Amino acid sequence: MLIKNGLVFSQGTFSRTDILLEGGSIAAVGEGLAHEESFDASGLIIIPGMVNAHTHLAMTLLRGAGDDMPLQAWLSERIWPLEGNLTRTDCYWGGMLGIVEMIRTGTTCFNDMYFHMDATVRAVKETGMRAALTHAVIDLGDEDKAARELAESDRIEGLCRGEPRLTYLLGPHAPYTCSESFLRNIRARATERGLRIHIHVSETAQEVSDMRRERGMSPVAYLDTIGVLGPDTICAHCVHVNEADRDILLSRGAHVAHCPQSNMKLSSGIAPLPAMDAAGVSLSLGTDGAASNNSLDMGAETKAMALVHKLAGPMNLSAARSFAVATQGGANALGLPVGAIEQGRRADLVFLDARHYSLRPPHDLLSNIVYAMRPDAIRHVMVDGAFLMRDGELTTIDEELVCEKATEHALALVEKVR
Amino acid sequence: MLIKNGLVFSQGTFSRTDILLEGGSIAAVGEGLAHEESFDASGLIIIPGMVNAHTHLAMTLLRGAGDDMPLQAWLSERIWPLEGNLTRTDCYWGGMLGIVEMIRTGTTCFNDMYFHMDATVRAVKETGMRAALTHAVIDLGDEDKAARELAESDRIEGLCRGEPRLTYLLGPHAPYTCSESFLRNIRARATERGLRIHIHVSETAQEVSDMRRERGMSPVAYLDTIGVLGPDTICAHCVHVNEADRDILLSRGAHVAHCPQSNMKLSSGIAPLPAMDAAGVSLSLGTDGAASNNSLDMGAETKAMALVHKLAGPMNLSAARSFAVATQGGANALGLPVGAIEQGRRADLVFLDARHYSLRPPHDLLSNIVYAMRPDAIRHVMVDGAFLMRDGELTTIDEELVCEKATEHALALVEKVR
Repeated sequence: MLIKNGLVFSQGTFSRTDILLEGGSIAAVGEGLAHEESFDASGLIIIPGMVNAHTHLAMTLLRGAGDDMPLQAWLSERIWPLEGNLTRTDCYWGGMLGIVEMIRTGTTCFNDMYFHMDATVRAVKETGMRAALTHAVIDLGDEDKAARELAESDRIEGLCRGEPRLTYLLGPHAPYTCSESFLRNIRARATERGLRIHIHVSETAQEVSDMRRERGMSPVAYLDTIGVLGPDTICAHCVHVNEADRDILLSRGAHVAHCPQSNMKLSSGIAPLPAMDAAGVSLSLGTDGAASNNSLDMGAETKAMALVHKLAGPMNLSAARSFAVATQGGANALGLPVGAIEQGRRADLVFLDARHYSLRPPHDLLSNIVYAMRPDAIRHVMVDGAFLMRDGELTTIDEELVCEKATEHALALVEKVR
Repeated sequence: MLIKNGLVFSQGTFSRTDILLEGGSIAAVGEGLAHEESFDASGLIIIPGMVNAHTHLAMTLLRGAGDDMPLQAWLSERIWPLEGNLTRTDCYWGGMLGIVEMIRTGTTCFNDMYFHMDATVRAVKETGMRAALTHAVIDLGDEDKAARELAESDRIEGLCRGEPRLTYLLGPHAPYTCSESFLRNIRARATERGLRIHIHVSETAQEVSDMRRERGMSPVAYLDTIGVLGPDTICAHCVHVNEADRDILLSRGAHVAHCPQSNMKLSSGIAPLPAMDAAGVSLSLGTDGAASNNSLDMGAETKAMALVHKLAGPMNLSAARSFAVATQGGANALGLPVGAIEQGRRADLVFLDARHYSLRPPHDLLSNIVYAMRPDAIRHVMVDGAFLMRDGELTTIDEELVCEKATEHALALVEKVR
């Protein structure tokens, strides 16, 4: 297919040009291309889809189930009891609701760590989304639990193997929930199997001070000491990282998945993103789960990142840099050929109505997209060359059914723990 | 008209009830009401419209014309040269674009301070919006300039007089741009005419330290010393206010218009809102102009406020408190009977699609509205009992024409200063 006459964001600038797609990939970007099937993108701005680098998709079911609470009370009184009762079917409908939200807000790929991931595999396959999936594993030093968790991880890995839009990652939950031997074991598996690792790192000051007391070093230093960190590691949060931690992350080529809105909402703090960026650490952006955000809208997350870091300086995280983190940054973290409109990348594209009020006037389109655009400016969304939204309608999802079913399962879940 | 079967947010809770409107006001909220004309709000959530307590409406024309710059360079190199060339017609189309954005994002009243306010008067009258308008006056110690500015202010005041949805305020720009005698003069006029005062106060650390050096006191203390502060004064920003300033604001009953996203974007800082709130200072919320935000979406502003203050504590600015600040807080600041669904208030209402994905699941509707809702959940918007948006279509505005004209004028403006 040839996408014609769009205003295309490629190589850092907007130009009116064409995009040739072949087999779900971008075969060429430029003038004078030809194909028998063409799609007229006149009046549309075409940008790469956003990559949500850290989320817990089915937590959409817990959206609003606990807010404005201290972190520990939030987890122990609200989230954990509810999560303990989640079924596979719950996670399917919660996952579907999350995918509706992502497509409608311009996200074409997400990096998910949760439970009942076979439900998410099913949701991703049915909807045509792209995802990196992780069954979160926690051993708490219990070898039987470790074995059970790894068996489940293997099962989900098997379900993802060979699937075109699915990538599997290994997901040790965090340094404080996984034993050292378990972490070393997972590192060895990751290397052996060529899988990436997705882990929570230094989200709260408490976990950093606990680790310093127990092991005399930061979580980042500890993970490095036992060999976990590498260019295949995605460290979610990294709120409380010092200069030495930054040096380690940089030298290992590890990726940070920044979650500014969740970090604010849970009172975790502001990650030192400008310092990490200046040092050259690989940065990506995520929404975290819907229970601590409570939205999965990466556009809003991008603006939040751009603004909160300007508190420390008005030139921090410019619109262009923020957009790059939210797109190519996520692609780099996941090692996937997405996040940019360039020959050889997969065709994960978002088409914006150039005449939408929130994109006017067009002094600086990228500034408008990052700082002003509302999601209803998004007309079409394409993943792997297929439209998942066209003229504002989802093409692969019965949205009304998903909203009803997710509501039904979420309300039943809350009843269970009452 | 009787609005039937909606899920109505009134007195702090949601209930399925009816709203009786008479002459643009809410005559009653409850069951068993009757009227020959009825509107079926089944499947809709009805909330009060948001009140944007500080903006510069026609700055929509400058959206994206200067970003990611230090404040002084932004003002002197970009904003002021452009503003110096603004015409009345520019401001009309810029104002119309701002009103489109406000209606579509659920704002039904705004407090505007800018130039060429006759253009804004026209835009407000034509569109059916509600607004408090202020011709910003600056004398810089020049008596001739002061006289000219006050003459223009009188002219705009005359245009607003007797108009049903318009309120006029006196607008001394800031303590550092207005002389003491000018400020005293405006205070006297305000009291004599029963008009409120809208002024920028302590937006940046620089202006506070300048004032301390020049007069040995903070801007808040200075304004109080010369009698400016009262229950009829709206102080925009108040980022750099200490405990003594808070005590003054509280004891005078002055209102704060908080602008968190602009304050972040321009690197001004975070206002001590939780402390002001705990002290009982009257709080309202505004977006500031589109050049420093760059959106006029009060829903997004509300979430930004709720989140940024949670950095200092997870219970700060709960969803309910944040929503109250964004609605009733603005109504209190302006002294207008809006911002809540109660007998005797004007019928400024926003109707949400209860089935919208971003409002699911309905564990806590107010949490969903503040933390998760996307603006396309808004189906209808009513001001003064009249629909300004119905089924997603603006009823009083040719939106396509406004977007085109605003673009044309914005691009011509940039050309002028090139």
